[in-house]
Formats: sequence, C-alpha cells, structure tokens
Amino acid sequence: MTRVEVDLNDVTEALRSALADNDLKTAAHEIAPISVAEAVTVLERLSTKQRAVAYRLLPKDDALDVFESLDPVVQGELMGGLRDEEVMTLFEGLDPDDRVWLMDELPATVAGRLLHGLSPDERRLTASVLGYPKDSVGRRMSPEFVSAHGDFTVAQTIARVRERAADAETVYTIPVVNSSRVVIGVVELKDLLVAGNEEILSSLMEDPEMVGATESDESAARRLTDLGFLAMPVVDSEARLVGIFTIDDAARILEYEESQDAARQGGTEDLRRPYLSTPILHIARSRVVWLLVLAVGASLTVQVLSVFEATLAQVTALSLFVPLLIGTGGNTGNQAATTVTRALALGDVHSSDVWRVAGREVRVGFFLGLLLGVLGFVITGAIFGWNIGTVIGLTLLAVCTVAATIGGCMPLLAKAIHADPAVFSNPFISTFTDASGLIIYFVIAKAVLGI
Amino acid sequence: MTRVEVDLNDVTEALRSALADNDLKTAAHEIAPISVAEAVTVLERLSTKQRAVAYRLLPKDDALDVFESLDPVVQGELMGGLRDEEVMTLFEGLDPDDRVWLMDELPATVAGRLLHGLSPDERRLTASVLGYPKDSVGRRMSPEFVSAHGDFTVAQTIARVRERAADAETVYTIPVVNSSRVVIGVVELKDLLVAGNEEILSSLMEDPEMVGATESDESAARRLTDLGFLAMPVVDSEARLVGIFTIDDAARILEYEESQDAARQGGTEDLRRPYLSTPILHIARSRVVWLLVLAVGASLTVQVLSVFEATLAQVTALSLFVPLLIGTGGNTGNQAATTVTRALALGDVHSSDVWRVAGREVRVGFFLGLLLGVLGFVITGAIFGWNIGTVIGLTLLAVCTVAATIGGCMPLLAKAIHADPAVFSNPFISTFTDASGLIIYFVIAKAVLGI
Repeated sequence: MTRVEVDLNDVTEALRSALADNDLKTAAHEIAPISVAEAVTVLERLSTKQRAVAYRLLPKDDALDVFESLDPVVQGELMGGLRDEEVMTLFEGLDPDDRVWLMDELPATVAGRLLHGLSPDERRLTASVLGYPKDSVGRRMSPEFVSAHGDFTVAQTIARVRERAADAETVYTIPVVNSSRVVIGVVELKDLLVAGNEEILSSLMEDPEMVGATESDESAARRLTDLGFLAMPVVDSEARLVGIFTIDDAARILEYEESQDAARQGGTEDLRRPYLSTPILHIARSRVVWLLVLAVGASLTVQVLSVFEATLAQVTALSLFVPLLIGTGGNTGNQAATTVTRALALGDVHSSDVWRVAGREVRVGFFLGLLLGVLGFVITGAIFGWNIGTVIGLTLLAVCTVAATIGGCMPLLAKAIHADPAVFSNPFISTFTDASGLIIYFVIAKAVLGI
Repeated sequence: MTRVEVDLNDVTEALRSALADNDLKTAAHEIAPISVAEAVTVLERLSTKQRAVAYRLLPKDDALDVFESLDPVVQGELMGGLRDEEVMTLFEGLDPDDRVWLMDELPATVAGRLLHGLSPDERRLTASVLGYPKDSVGRRMSPEFVSAHGDFTVAQTIARVRERAADAETVYTIPVVNSSRVVIGVVELKDLLVAGNEEILSSLMEDPEMVGATESDESAARRLTDLGFLAMPVVDSEARLVGIFTIDDAARILEYEESQDAARQGGTEDLRRPYLSTPILHIARSRVVWLLVLAVGASLTVQVLSVFEATLAQVTALSLFVPLLIGTGGNTGNQAATTVTRALALGDVHSSDVWRVAGREVRVGFFLGLLLGVLGFVITGAIFGWNIGTVIGLTLLAVCTVAATIGGCMPLLAKAIHADPAVFSNPFISTFTDASGLIIYFVIAKAVLGI
C-alpha cells in the first residue's frame, strides 16, 4: 500500500510540474505507463484545468475506461474542458445508468443537449431511467438486463446470455419471468454452468429478492450489500421486470451517502470532489452557512448567561466551569446522536422506535451522569469547597441525562419529518445542549448556594 | 420502502411477544413465511436470548443462508445459544473467508476448538487465510478461486469453470497465471461466453488489477469498489496467485470501517451490533472511556479560566461570550477535521500532504473568521460597546484560523503516527480548541481593554 501511494504521489507531482511548464511530452511520458485505476486517482487529484490537459494525454484505448471510473462530479468538470465531439463520444460510450449519474451533475441545458445527440436506441434506454424520481432505485438501475422465461432450458438460457452479453450490464444474475414479464425467480449464471443442458429454469431458480423501482436507492443498496448478492431485479408496482440493480452502483450510492452523513455530522456540506483539487472558496462556501447557523444558535448562550449575570458577578467561580459543563453535555449528546444516526442509516432503528430509543438513552445518560457527577463532586468539592462540588456533581448528572436523551431522539425526529437525520446532528445538538445545560447549571447553583 | 419497514416492525413485535409468552407455535408461524433477507433483519433486532430461539424456528432450508448473512458479531452471539453439533454444522457450512470473519469475533479457545472440528480440507483452507495479519487483504480473501493458464482455450477454461463452480467463491473473474502461478492477466466469464471456443486466453485477457495479500483490507476494498470490479486476484510478494478478493467482502469491510469512523467522530466506540438489541450497560461502556478522557481534557479550561479569574471579576461581561467563542472554534475545527478525515478514508489525501492541507485550512479558516469577525464586531459592538465588539471580532478571526488549521492537520498527524485519524477527531479537537480559544480570548481582551 505505502509503495503504491508514494509512487502515485510522485507521478501526480511530476505531472503537475510538467503541466505547469506546458511540457506535454514529459507529462505524456508520466501518465502513459500507469494503469486505469491509477490514472483515475491521479486525475482526481489534479485541478480542473490540468485534468483536462492530462486526460487528453492518456492512451486512446484507456481513455473511455478511465472516464467511466471517474466520479460523476469530476466527469462533469472534465467535460467542460473537452471539445464537443470528444464529449459526445464519451457520453455515447457510457452505460445508461452511468450516463444518468453524470446527467444529474450537469446543468439541465447541457444534459438535454447531450441526450438529444444520442442514437435513438441509447436515448430510449436513458430516458427510461431518467423517468424515475431522484434517489429512487429506478434512476440507478440498468435497463440493459438479460432475462429468461421459466420454461427455458439451461442451454437456451446460456445461448441467450452469449447473444446479449456484450450489451448487458450484467449476465451473472438472470431474472426469470413469466409471460407477463412478472419476475418469478432468479438464477445465477454459476448455477446454470453446473446444471445439465436440458434442465428447466423454473426448477433451478431461487425465490427472487426484488426491489421496487420507486424505492429509496440507499435502502436498496444497503439490502443488496447486506445480502452479498451481485444484483437484484428491479420491478414496477405489478412486479414486472424493468431493470437490474447491480452491486457496483450500490457501492457508489453507499459511498456517496456516507460522505454526506460524515459531512453533516461535522456540520459542513459534502465537497463532492477530491479535497486537494477543490478551490479554497468552494471549501469555505461548504462550511459558511452551517457555521453562521450554529453561531446564531450559540448566541442563545449569550442571552442565557446575561439573565444570570448577577449570579456570575456574585460567585465568579461559577464561570470557571461553564466550558467544562457544556462541553460534557455536548459530548454526551453527540455520542447518542452518532450512534442513533448510524443505526438509522444501517436500518437497525426506525423513526417509530422513538420511545424505545428515548427509554434507552435516558438510562444510558443517567448512568454516565452518575459516574461523572460523583467524580465531579469529589474533585471539585475537594478543591473549591463542597457547596460548589454539589452544584457541579448535580449539574453533570442532570446535563448528561438530558443531553443523551435529546441526542438520541433528535435524529429520529428529523427522519420523521423527512429531513436528513445527520443535519440535526452533532454541532446542532451541541448548540442546543449548551443553552439547556446553562439553564440547568444556574438553576441548580441558585438552589444549592441559596442566591 | 415504508411498507416493507412497517411489515418487518410488525413481524418483529409479534415475534417478540410470542417468544416472551413462550408461544413457539405463533412464533414459528410469524417467521416461516418471510424471506432470508427479512429473517436476517428481524433476527438482528431481537435480543440475544430470543434470537437463538427464533433462529431454531426457521425453515431448515433457509437456516444456513440466514446464518451466512448475519453480521459476524451476531453470528458469534447466536452460537452461544445453540447446541454444539448445530454450531459445528453451521461452521462447516461457511466459506473459508466468512469462517475467519466469525472466528475473529469468537474467544480464542472456542475458535480453536471449532477449527479443530473441521474436515482436513476445510481446515487447511481456513488456516491459509488465518495466516495473514488482521486488517490485511489476505485475511479477507477466499482461497477457493478458479484460475486458468494463459495458453488455455476458451472451451478448456469454461470446462474448468463448470468443474469448480460449486466450490469456488466466484467464477466470474478468472485470474490468468503462467506456469509459476504468477498472475499475468484477468478474464471475465462474460467475455469468455462471447468469444470463440478455440480462442486462447492470453489473447483475450486484460492487464490485471491485483492486490498484495499483506496490503490493508480497507484500501483494497476502496480500490475494488472504485473500479466497479467484482473481484481482484490476491498475490504474494512474488506476484503469485494466493486467493481472490470479492466485492461482497469489500462492501462489508467498508461498512465496518465507516461505522468505526462515524463512531469515533462522535467520540464513542462502535457498538458492532444492532442498537436496539444491545444491552444498556454495553452502550454506556462504549461511551464512558471517551467521555472521561474528554472531561479530563476539558478540565484544562477550568485551569485556563482560573488564571484569568481576576479579569473575569473585573469585566463580568467577558464571561457571557465564552460559550459562543469556544463553540464557534470547536465547530470550525470539526468542519475541517471531518472533511480531511473523509478525504483520508477515500484516499484523496495522504499524510505526506500535511503542509498542503495546512496551507489550505489557514486560508479557509481566515476567510471564515473574517466573515464571522466582522459580523461579531458589528453586532456585539452595537449592543455591548465597541471595545467589547473589537475583542469579540478579533477573537473570532483568530480562533477560526487556528481551529481550522489544527482541525485539518490533526487527522493527518494521527495517520502519520499510525493512529486512527478518526480518534483525534471532533470531540478531541473541540476540547483542544476550547483551551487555546480561551487563551486567545483573554490575551486579546487584556490588550484591547488595557487591563
């Protein structure tokens, strides 16, 4: 691993400086010997301008393969730097489902013009995928599948596979249909190869794991990878076969969703392109909105503290513990939110489980709060006196219980109102627990200290 | 999607209450008609005890398929509730690579006893995988592959595939080797099916994308899914074929790594099992260590504030902004850390890029700080006076710049010392930026206010 990484870093650097010097000969010399996979990595690390130049220096045979493996966002950027006829050749060369991924990244006018330039056959296939809503499996399936009838023999089916293999997205998972195109089973090519030539499909096939074309692409992708299958038939509302959903698309969907979730958990937008080739201003833009929203939220803490300003002036020592207390509340809330957000993404928890989750998090939070509270009481009490110790201990207990409960329920509530659970997540919860934690703190302090 | 989820919720609930009432007939009636995939979901949502009972109620034909698809952690738990001979049958029925996943979750004595009970052939295959280090591809590969020689004809190769298909992990990607078992290419079964029977493999094969057996499993999994391939040959240090690495294992590795990263980002340990079936104490345990570490870190803020207690007593208004300022610093640091951690996981950034990342984050942080600083100056200045406004504005500028830089570099430094980048992540960075933010704040305040 280390060896390969270092090499690719060197290639990228050599390419960067050759392109900066406009030395195309050296650049071509650097990029020609590397594999398709390596070329993809190197290209994604270059700036948009250098990438278009470097792409043209690739050996002709590799160019389409490399293009197919690039991230759709990068594909879109790259197209901007190529000539119209180059763009059209690449676009025509993509599979219909990859084409739709790319179109989702392009301005509507460009996407429309490209679609128009396709051959009628390819246009029809692409349009059938484009007809499904965003984030549905229909939009991520391939309409180029090989299916077979239940009364086909193994030999007939293999002959059909041979005939269609060149065009089809996959031939390894073969949906079996009846005369109304309703899916009645699935056979694996592997099983056909070990079966006798005259065996009948309907006796070989297994019960189909199918997915509806309008279902969520993320949950279908999760299901496919959990099952460890290579593909699933995609069906319409009457169980008729309309396409096939393959594991490479599932993996891409999950990677995309996980990038989104990770970004949201950190209070930022997903860059959707490689970090080092993203302009500084684009990075700043991906963060500024959330930072402002969170700052506005945090200004609530200024108001809460103003209310208790007299108390603070009276017992300055109280202000020493503010960051510790709200920090601990934030951490406890974040832990709960992170666990529940991930459980939601994995399908382990659903929004209807809100009471069950709340019940668990109250207990987890109380347990953690009890432990921290006792520690806080002993340590702070010994140093700052037992009155302050009591305030800190009780506050930690209360804050942890409240924060874990809020943190655990927030992602479920977000999901229930059809928002992304990760949006109402860590930084948001920190801000929320900051304000509530401060109120708890001062209420307890006033009661214990009698002020 | 909703329909299926609701149904499974109902099944799970019905099963739970039937099992609680010891009503096995109703329980069997609930679980019998659902598919393998659904049974997996339902079982993973039950408690350990109920799961073992429910598992035994599954139709015999489905039981092994369901077991294979369960998460290895859940498999291990389930085994504890089954009879020895049931356990041995299940264990013998697994593929060697799945068996090793499971063994990694079992106590060493149990794993050893099970390994000993295998047939000599299966034991040999399993031992060859077990010989590779944890987190290496060797440990996640299958030793049951179909390979072919470069001088084989298509007909010869297909005959070989037919002969081996029943045992092999996959027959769709066929490594091509020379007489010393060195991998010289790869052919896809699909391409064999459309080629002429007498064509020679060496003229059909493509350059192989291979992976070394001791390479990191995560980076290999990422590479495989990025390429959209179904499998890659695994080779030893002399490029000799030792196994095959398939996309279903790659997807499982990535899901596991992403759960780990998500958990660490939230300052908790990955539960490694479904949330709702995890005991409360286990959840608390996964959080308590981090919470204590972070609380100890946060006690630094108490010390920093004690140093400036006199200043705070003099200008109580300063304490009002403490949560806002450190919160904004934490958010800015978290945003940078999240972006860079994800870029590291995706291979877009390497630890050698630390200066480049630092250079970018200084600028991003400065830009964000400038914006927030100006806003903070105007708003706070208008309400609390221009002196305080100046302090807040300058502090926001400085804190954002420092926090983004630290947040961006921390994951890279962690990686450089071979620690998990996600460990030194969000809550850790918040704690770190809290203390440095407070120092910056009071230094600026003393300078501007002349106290």
